[in-house]
This record gives sequence, structure tokens and C-alpha cells, in this order.
Amino acid sequence: MSTYSIGIDIGGTNTDMGLVRNDGTIVTRSNIPTNAYIDFEPYIRDIVACIEKMMKDCNVDTIEGIGIGAPNGNFYTGCVDNAPNLTIKGVLNFEQEIHKYMNVPVVLSNDANAAAYGEMVYGGAKGLQHFIMFTLGTGVGSGIVIDGKLVHGSTGAAGELGHSILIPNGRRCTCGRNGCLETYTSARGIVQTYFELKGTPVTADVDSKRIGDLANQGDPTALKTWETVADQLGLAMANAVNFSAPQAIFLMGGPTKVGEPLLKPLQAAFDRYILNIFAGSCQIRMSQLKANEVAILGAAALIKMKK
Amino acid sequence: MSTYSIGIDIGGTNTDMGLVRNDGTIVTRSNIPTNAYIDFEPYIRDIVACIEKMMKDCNVDTIEGIGIGAPNGNFYTGCVDNAPNLTIKGVLNFEQEIHKYMNVPVVLSNDANAAAYGEMVYGGAKGLQHFIMFTLGTGVGSGIVIDGKLVHGSTGAAGELGHSILIPNGRRCTCGRNGCLETYTSARGIVQTYFELKGTPVTADVDSKRIGDLANQGDPTALKTWETVADQLGLAMANAVNFSAPQAIFLMGGPTKVGEPLLKPLQAAFDRYILNIFAGSCQIRMSQLKANEVAILGAAALIKMKK
Repeated sequence: MSTYSIGIDIGGTNTDMGLVRNDGTIVTRSNIPTNAYIDFEPYIRDIVACIEKMMKDCNVDTIEGIGIGAPNGNFYTGCVDNAPNLTIKGVLNFEQEIHKYMNVPVVLSNDANAAAYGEMVYGGAKGLQHFIMFTLGTGVGSGIVIDGKLVHGSTGAAGELGHSILIPNGRRCTCGRNGCLETYTSARGIVQTYFELKGTPVTADVDSKRIGDLANQGDPTALKTWETVADQLGLAMANAVNFSAPQAIFLMGGPTKVGEPLLKPLQAAFDRYILNIFAGSCQIRMSQLKANEVAILGAAALIKMKK
Repeated sequence: MSTYSIGIDIGGTNTDMGLVRNDGTIVTRSNIPTNAYIDFEPYIRDIVACIEKMMKDCNVDTIEGIGIGAPNGNFYTGCVDNAPNLTIKGVLNFEQEIHKYMNVPVVLSNDANAAAYGEMVYGGAKGLQHFIMFTLGTGVGSGIVIDGKLVHGSTGAAGELGHSILIPNGRRCTCGRNGCLETYTSARGIVQTYFELKGTPVTADVDSKRIGDLANQGDPTALKTWETVADQLGLAMANAVNFSAPQAIFLMGGPTKVGEPLLKPLQAAFDRYILNIFAGSCQIRMSQLKANEVAILGAAALIKMKK
């Protein structure tokens, strides 16, 4: 029998919502502009109105719950705590506010954790008990699954491997420290590496997508850029294996779309850096979820954790 | 009511055994020389004889189980797999062999995992749900507890943070790779750093204990050595926090006995390297178990995991 849940992806610009069937189909979608709100109450009211409309439009009477992926989303408290990119300020208790209108489970987590969980429930990590998801984009996020459970840690914010220091005293990071993985393997870090290798100042017309296209056309500097990124990411992935001995590490996000120029040297770097006792025990895999669905599916998947 | 279990610490030279009361007291101890055995069967027979004698001597009729800490000990299989430092070769199925004589639960794990679990059951980590133990000695080991459970990962060998690569292309490690944490913060790594700072060849009369004594007497090179080690260990600890957001990181082992010269700069380095969202959420603590008891208590504690 089909059951349904709601997935909500809260971004600084838009709040995307979807009604998700238990087979991983997004039956219908809706969205409101997050940055049009200053106050929390009308924002929640409009979210609830969207949910009710989606359910009505699809003749769905009951849902299993509402899952929310949000920057700074805290699994334990059900709150978004002072997210810098939101126009609505303060500690936002989504669980409590939504419960004023709807009596269903509400589960929050950050976006990378939601992506990992979505992969497990609806994607390529089905049936896996131990895996790690790296999301490459504006930043580098991660979600860690151990024994079939998402790792939230004592604070609810565990799984920040993008801010593991890869190169002591390396590049300056937005977090205020130096040498974080994110400064090398985020879209911006990849662009920086390209121009460093080229030996010219950074120009605004070249993004990581363009460097991917150049590499696939055989441009030597672009190819060298992806080899460098592969080496750095492969090292970080091998280090992560020491922690939880996962069966697989998944990758998703814009920069991974380049394909071979990244993936071939990445496998080689991972094989070179992995500790001997783990050799062959952990595969590198690409996310099996569509880029425009992962956020909603990941959020909706969070509901499955309550059971 | 008092209950009892057996803790066994398997080293290359000695096999130490203890009868442990549920309050964490080692009621009596016994040992046999591991390296006097080539065959597994007589070795197990003698272990069982020791266990039965300890129980008889103390008028203990029943035990909850037998916990074993061993190099390459695998929690999932109950086997020690080809441990390089044992004279008994091959895959040693302790669980199966002991069950030929005694019908009680047998649980195996590696020594650092056992130390972490011992700290949780009998030591300073009582009541904690999320912590990491670093053991500094000949090597650097670690045990990771998440949600009150030891992390074994998919292979049973998770928690090898001593082999996380701290400095890419750094010092050569016994594992065949370069730059592992172990090459800097093990007893041997500390000695190497001391002589590098001194600018003279390594001599056999100086060990990490001696460098500790020198530091506590105010020797500038020794003090600088511990500051360097603190910086390296503090960085590795901050990186580990990104993974599981623990409430505490525990330290044990010979080199930690130096006290202030390590611990003061370590706290400073940890505070400097920790990601801002985790600031203040994780304490550095020393193991509360005695050095000569931790291996047996840790092994005995493993039994508690079966429940």
C-alpha cells in the first residue's frame, strides 16, 4: 500500500516542498520564497497551507510525517538555530510551530545529513548499514550513516567533514580556520586551484562547470586541476574510512558531474591513501538521486528515522 | 548483587587475565606466556584452565561472559585475524574454541576499542553517549563511542584514527603510507621530533618518558617537543570532532603522563583548531582507569555490549 510523507528543503531563497510516495516518487511539488518572510508565524502558516493543498490536490488524507532539511537544522531540538542565510532570525522551532496546525511527526536535520538519508531510503545506498555521503557544491557537506543510523553526535551537528583540516596552515576557510577540505574541493576551491595552476588571476567567467568542460575537451590545466582535487578528496575519503569503516562513500553535487577527469584519479588516490586493512572494503559510488529531487527526497526520508 | 566477568588482554608476549566484579574491581589475575605457544588448541586449553582456577579460588560459580582485547580482534567474527605479533599463526576463532569448554558469551575487539569501552563501563566516561578514546603508546590507537555504542563499522576494524593522515607526504609510517598521526604522536614519533628539534641523531638512551622528565625540568627543546606534539594531536582531535560531535575526548597511555607540558598546549591547540559550531561542546579528559588495569577492565567491559 502507498504511504506518503512531506519533504521540505529550506534554502535562503526558496522553500521547496514535495509530497513523496513511499516508492520515492515526488507526486507533487510546491514552493514559497523564504526571503519574503521576516516573521516565523506567517512563514509556517504558508508552509502548512501548501502542505494541505498538495494533499488535497492528490487526494491524500494522511501523511507519515514532515521531514525538513535546513542549514543549521538540529535533529534533537527540531529547531533551526540562527541560520545566517535566512531572513527570519533567531531559533526557529519548526516542530513546535507545525504542531499547532498538524499532529504528525516533524523531523529536522541539516541538508547534507538529509541527502545521506535520502540515498539510503530512496537511492543507491538502499540496504547499506555503513556509508558516508560527501556533497560538493558551494561548500562541502557530509552525512554519515553507521549501523543504519544517521550520526548526529552529542550536539546534533555531527558530520562536518568539509571542515576537517586537510592541509595544516592551508587555504583560508569561511569558517575562520585554515586548510579545510572545503577550501580545496568546493566549487570555489576548484576554481582557485585552476587559476593557481594556470598562474593567472581568478576571473569571474570561469566556474567549476567550465573547468569540467575544459577537462573533457583535453585542456591540460583543467585536467591537472581535477587530478589535484581528486588527490585531496581521495585523501579525505581515506581518512574518513579510518573512522567508521563504511561499505561505500557516495558523492553528489555539481563538481562531480565532470565524470572521468575527477573520478578516475579519485579512485587511484583513494586506493593509494586507504589504510591496508580497509583495502577493497569501501567503494566509491555516485548518488543515484536526481539533482533536482535529492533535497526533497532526503528531507522526506528523515521521517523514517522516527520509527 | 555482585556479578562477574572475565577480561583477557592478548599481547605478543603475555596473555593477561582477570576476574572482574561488576563494580570494576579486578578480584584476581592470572597470566600465561603467549609466545610460548605455536598451536591454538593448547593455548585455549590453558586459558580456560586459568579462568576455571580464578573462579574456583574466588568461589565464583558463574560469569556473565569472557571479553577479549587483542590486536586485530574482530568483534563480528570473534576471531583474531593473522596478528603479526603473535607466534600462533592464522585466523584464530576464540569464540568457537572457548565454547568447546565453556558455554558463556565471548566478545572480542581490538585493544583500543576495549580501552574505550572500559572507560565507559568502569571509568571516567560513565554515562557518556558520545566520546572518543585516543591511546598513545608504541602506536596510536582509538576507540569511538556513538550513541553509547562502540563503532565497529562494516569490517569490524573501525576506529583507526592513529592512521589518519595528518600531514600529506609527511613521515613514513609502519603501515606503508606517509604522514599518519601515529608517526608524530606515538612514543617513537615524539622521540623523533625531539631529536629533529635538537638537530642531532636519535640516540637509544632517550625515550618519551625521558623527554617528559626533561620538559618538567624546564628543558627548552623538550618543552618545544611537547608543544609540537600538542599541536599535531589537537588538530587530529578537532578533526575527529567534525565526525561524531563527541562530548569528550579521552587520552591514555605513557606519553600522556608528562602532564602540563603536553596538556596545556593541547587544550590551546584544540581550542584553536575546533570548528566554531563545536566550540565548548567537547572536553579533553584523562582516562580514569589505572594503567595496569585498563586492558583487563576494557576486555571485561566488552561483555556488556551483548546485552
